[in-house]
Amino acid sequence: MRKIKFSAGLAAFGNGADRYVNSGYKEDITVEKMIELAGSVEDLEGIELVENWHVNKNNLSAIKECLEKYRFKVSMVIPDLWATKKWAMGSLSAKDAKTRQEAKETIINAMKMARKVDCDLIDVWFGQDGWDYSLEVDYLQSWEFLVEGLKEVADYDPGIRIGIEHKIKEPRCFAHVDSIGKLMLLIKEVERPNIGVVCDFGHCLAAYENLGQVLALMKHYGVKLFHTHFNDNYRLWDDDLISCSVHTIEYIEALYWLQKIDYQDWYSLDIFPFRIDGTKAATESIKWIKALAGVVDKIGVGKIDEVIKDGDACDTQRLIREAIFGF
Amino acid sequence: MRKIKFSAGLAAFGNGADRYVNSGYKEDITVEKMIELAGSVEDLEGIELVENWHVNKNNLSAIKECLEKYRFKVSMVIPDLWATKKWAMGSLSAKDAKTRQEAKETIINAMKMARKVDCDLIDVWFGQDGWDYSLEVDYLQSWEFLVEGLKEVADYDPGIRIGIEHKIKEPRCFAHVDSIGKLMLLIKEVERPNIGVVCDFGHCLAAYENLGQVLALMKHYGVKLFHTHFNDNYRLWDDDLISCSVHTIEYIEALYWLQKIDYQDWYSLDIFPFRIDGTKAATESIKWIKALAGVVDKIGVGKIDEVIKDGDACDTQRLIREAIFGF
Amino acid sequence: MRKIKFSAGLAAFGNGADRYVNSGYKEDITVEKMIELAGSVEDLEGIELVENWHVNKNNLSAIKECLEKYRFKVSMVIPDLWATKKWAMGSLSAKDAKTRQEAKETIINAMKMARKVDCDLIDVWFGQDGWDYSLEVDYLQSWEFLVEGLKEVADYDPGIRIGIEHKIKEPRCFAHVDSIGKLMLLIKEVERPNIGVVCDFGHCLAAYENLGQVLALMKHYGVKLFHTHFNDNYRLWDDDLISCSVHTIEYIEALYWLQKIDYQDWYSLDIFPFRIDGTKAATESIKWIKALAGVVDKIGVGKIDEVIKDGDACDTQRLIREAIFGF
Amino acid sequence: MRKIKFSAGLAAFGNGADRYVNSGYKEDITVEKMIELAGSVEDLEGIELVENWHVNKNNLSAIKECLEKYRFKVSMVIPDLWATKKWAMGSLSAKDAKTRQEAKETIINAMKMARKVDCDLIDVWFGQDGWDYSLEVDYLQSWEFLVEGLKEVADYDPGIRIGIEHKIKEPRCFAHVDSIGKLMLLIKEVERPNIGVVCDFGHCLAAYENLGQVLALMKHYGVKLFHTHFNDNYRLWDDDLISCSVHTIEYIEALYWLQKIDYQDWYSLDIFPFRIDGTKAATESIKWIKALAGVVDKIGVGKIDEVIKDGDACDTQRLIREAIFGF
Repeated sequence: MRKIKFSAGLAAFGNGADRYVNSGYKEDITVEKMIELAGSVEDLEGIELVENWHVNKNNLSAIKECLEKYRFKVSMVIPDLWATKKWAMGSLSAKDAKTRQEAKETIINAMKMARKVDCDLIDVWFGQDGWDYSLEVDYLQSWEFLVEGLKEVADYDPGIRIGIEHKIKEPRCFAHVDSIGKLMLLIKEVERPNIGVVCDFGHCLAAYENLGQVLALMKHYGVKLFHTHFNDNYRLWDDDLISCSVHTIEYIEALYWLQKIDYQDWYSLDIFPFRIDGTKAATESIKWIKALAGVVDKIGVGKIDEVIKDGDACDTQRLIREAIFGF
Repeated sequence: MRKIKFSAGLAAFGNGADRYVNSGYKEDITVEKMIELAGSVEDLEGIELVENWHVNKNNLSAIKECLEKYRFKVSMVIPDLWATKKWAMGSLSAKDAKTRQEAKETIINAMKMARKVDCDLIDVWFGQDGWDYSLEVDYLQSWEFLVEGLKEVADYDPGIRIGIEHKIKEPRCFAHVDSIGKLMLLIKEVERPNIGVVCDFGHCLAAYENLGQVLALMKHYGVKLFHTHFNDNYRLWDDDLISCSVHTIEYIEALYWLQKIDYQDWYSLDIFPFRIDGTKAATESIKWIKALAGVVDKIGVGKIDEVIKDGDACDTQRLIREAIFGF
Repeated sequence: MRKIKFSAGLAAFGNGADRYVNSGYKEDITVEKMIELAGSVEDLEGIELVENWHVNKNNLSAIKECLEKYRFKVSMVIPDLWATKKWAMGSLSAKDAKTRQEAKETIINAMKMARKVDCDLIDVWFGQDGWDYSLEVDYLQSWEFLVEGLKEVADYDPGIRIGIEHKIKEPRCFAHVDSIGKLMLLIKEVERPNIGVVCDFGHCLAAYENLGQVLALMKHYGVKLFHTHFNDNYRLWDDDLISCSVHTIEYIEALYWLQKIDYQDWYSLDIFPFRIDGTKAATESIKWIKALAGVVDKIGVGKIDEVIKDGDACDTQRLIREAIFGF
Repeated sequence: MRKIKFSAGLAAFGNGADRYVNSGYKEDITVEKMIELAGSVEDLEGIELVENWHVNKNNLSAIKECLEKYRFKVSMVIPDLWATKKWAMGSLSAKDAKTRQEAKETIINAMKMARKVDCDLIDVWFGQDGWDYSLEVDYLQSWEFLVEGLKEVADYDPGIRIGIEHKIKEPRCFAHVDSIGKLMLLIKEVERPNIGVVCDFGHCLAAYENLGQVLALMKHYGVKLFHTHFNDNYRLWDDDLISCSVHTIEYIEALYWLQKIDYQDWYSLDIFPFRIDGTKAATESIKWIKALAGVVDKIGVGKIDEVIKDGDACDTQRLIREAIFGF
């Protein structure tokens, strides 16, 4: 059985709001309390922190102490490029030069913070870099700004890895970096060794992307997979549900491909348990991932390879079924 | 040309938040300021108010005065059944009896408020009444609660019309009242003369419903159309964009059917201009609706009827094109 | 454990074509050969036959003999209302009176044939009754034709049950009877004891309908469930894949609700194994359904009821996981 | 006003079948008759031919004579890689070496045929190269086969341009080359000057791609646009409807970007008028494209550039509205 290092975004343990209930479905709690809640989740070893929001110069030592108390490592630091109104019209791709500059500084601050919390990875998700209407943005110029900005921040500290996350939409109706294909083009153009991918499986499902093919093509193109985000959804929106609560077989395929490409980094939860207990949702997510990874590992990558080589979809269905149910 | 009475939800003029930017993409402003902004929109004659949030016993006279200043009528009062955390697990369909009772009181308060602002219509949208996970709710019991609750509130004041709005999802992954078919079943079961439909065209598009058929079936089943909501989206989510900014032909069909069924009530805007100027977005929405209604009215319902009777889709495409472009 | 009666549409064993490969991905074979292939599928006891295409006055005795040879019962007879070009512009809802008359005769012929093959159920799917373009059809008139036609055929032989199947689209871009809500409205309006539902779970998934809620609402409205169709898809199209090859948890929920509403009729496969072996695909479908029904039956409806009553989605995820994986 | 060269796939004028009506909704007619029908469409100057199916060594001179009679140029030759059962498990990406070889020969035959009909462009659409089930294919190997095969055929005759067409799905549930991002990666890897894109706008819409961004990114990455396919759909399937019959504003944006990138090649129709008259459907498609291109050209690319530079979506909505309706 593979050894999995589980991590979670801290938001899983806090309050979650949406466009209707702006103050959130739960009560606001401190970051320390979120970490404490995370501490009660079995098998959880890493925490993702949003720079400034979760950790900043004022609370740094307190947060570090708190993480140590629960034996957490920081799995990833996330610059806030999407949670403040100043990014309304984009971050690195914004038309406004001052906003682009601020976006670069925000990313660099997260890189600095990563070093301070003994982490070498940050996550760049261009959530606000997109458009809502036809003829709203100059796609060419926006893309050039993305490339230029990424080069600059990558060069700031080549010792910090920058993982980029694609998502088909939300909060904008359309996103510049909406699909794995465009993300890989971007990464190849930026051409920096410390630039790779943070792959959110729910984002792939919502883009009608096959999780296995996404991982395979990254390998093919030598694009590095730095980090994974587990959650689930009903294929039409980034619902950020408990991992594997909707898709079973597709997660089994993803877990097979993670072995195939010898992925050794974090299996991290990016869930939004608006109305349910965050620690229970995280616990279920981890237990489901372990159960499905167990199916893959029990069968063995080699055996699955063989059946795929034969190429009869009925045989893989049988193989999975028998591994799960024993008949 | 038909005479259209335009209305708008007040939110179009305020600050809009989402799950990322919880404090909103603009600055918070007072309700009076929102009304003032609405006052600058040409052709706008009605305002929808959310009870408690926009209008309540404390500000009632101030709001009435403000509305009068800009010559606005209140087109609809909306009970808050979806903007407060107490509704997290549903309102009228909640398992918790106290919550259901509170939901009824909230609806009744909106009915009372409607009388106070010289309006005879309220809007019941069951945004929080749904589920996120398989095996989460008892669909049978929830539906029974909806029916029972609606009967009770309808009987409270038969002089106030209650329009129910369906939506396929959001904020829940699934909604009990997700489609026009289920909504009509519900209304027929509740069987009260003051219960009808608030039809949000964007909700129809997001449910892959044809706007024309939705209106036609309401007529067929004698289900009353009390109010309409105009906006637009990319068919997969309730994006609440400027009306007619995405779909042209389908809005032309809707505007034809509104004439066919002799709809005389408000053409109301339900848009969320998170990042753009609300008064401009409302102005564009109204001008587009007028332009497209103008196409229908210029051709004439009778002429469209004839072409549909012939049943050649090419001919309707030609008819619309020629009416718009003159060739 | 429940006793399941499995059935399959004969097409699962024949040649399948699409709009690109019109002659099909396999070789054409005789109906007798299809039945022989079906005969090799373990646990398969029933066969659905398309009247005229699979069984007609010329081959009736041969087909009956062949079915007996493999101990098959006829689970359902299907009138061809969608596989011949004469239905291009609709069957029961067609504008052309002659076509509507022909549709009624086709349904009646299937009813007669049902009696001849000792079956009391036919399947009416309005695949061609819809539209492709805005302003193409008169929705009001079409719906009236559907109601009128169904009343007439239902009265022809009250001893034969007529199950109606909804589907959101394909082969038309839009269908009159696209959702469970509209189907129930139609059935209630037709108001004949021998009219009920054939529920295709893949059609529900493709309409973003929850399988459990669909079954629950049928019970609530006293609409009879006559037959079920099992298959699977990726939620955006009626892919007609091996049952449970995509959705696991949602099928578990459906299998729980089938017990809740005490469904005793056929669990029938409606799959299109274009490129894979039909008998293997049917075998996998049956084995997966049995495995997932086994999960439900092992936990027990009562226990699931309890957990739903508590209303914590994490607990149902845990319950299912533990029942499947034992931890 | 731009001068547009209109072309059409010959299938628009023939019989169209689907998985239900395998023999098609119309009568089969000869290729010569299809060309004759095409000849009646105003402004149509080019014809796409499927090699072998429409034109082959037996009918070559007859077809050339027929095309000359109606003054048609051949706009593109299409190798059949998706209309014969031998491609069931893929063409260039098939596991079977013999099938891959046959696919290369089929493409080369189309290249040869292109020369014979005075055309320098062929269309490679990998319709059958995909999968239906999780764990069915080896994505890595398939992709390598695609790359290798494309290099080989590109080198066969560098004087013939090979345009590759992406599509998200159908006839397979998933396609290897499903999105513009992956297509551009593929083209950059193959790295041959005679490899570019055939952009089907309906395929883009069905993949939730923005038509303008697709064109802009091709320019950014120096990927050549060889040919365009116009049609329309309801965003969830490749419905192949009359062009601009659903989306108006998005086509206006596409027509603006075609000017921006100085596209000079064919505006070609790829429509499937199953149930309507092909010549009328083609005529409407052309007239709509001309009308919407007229809107762009009337405003002028420079003026649109300016408004986009200002970046207020309301202003572009106004600009388009005023250009169309004059107010």
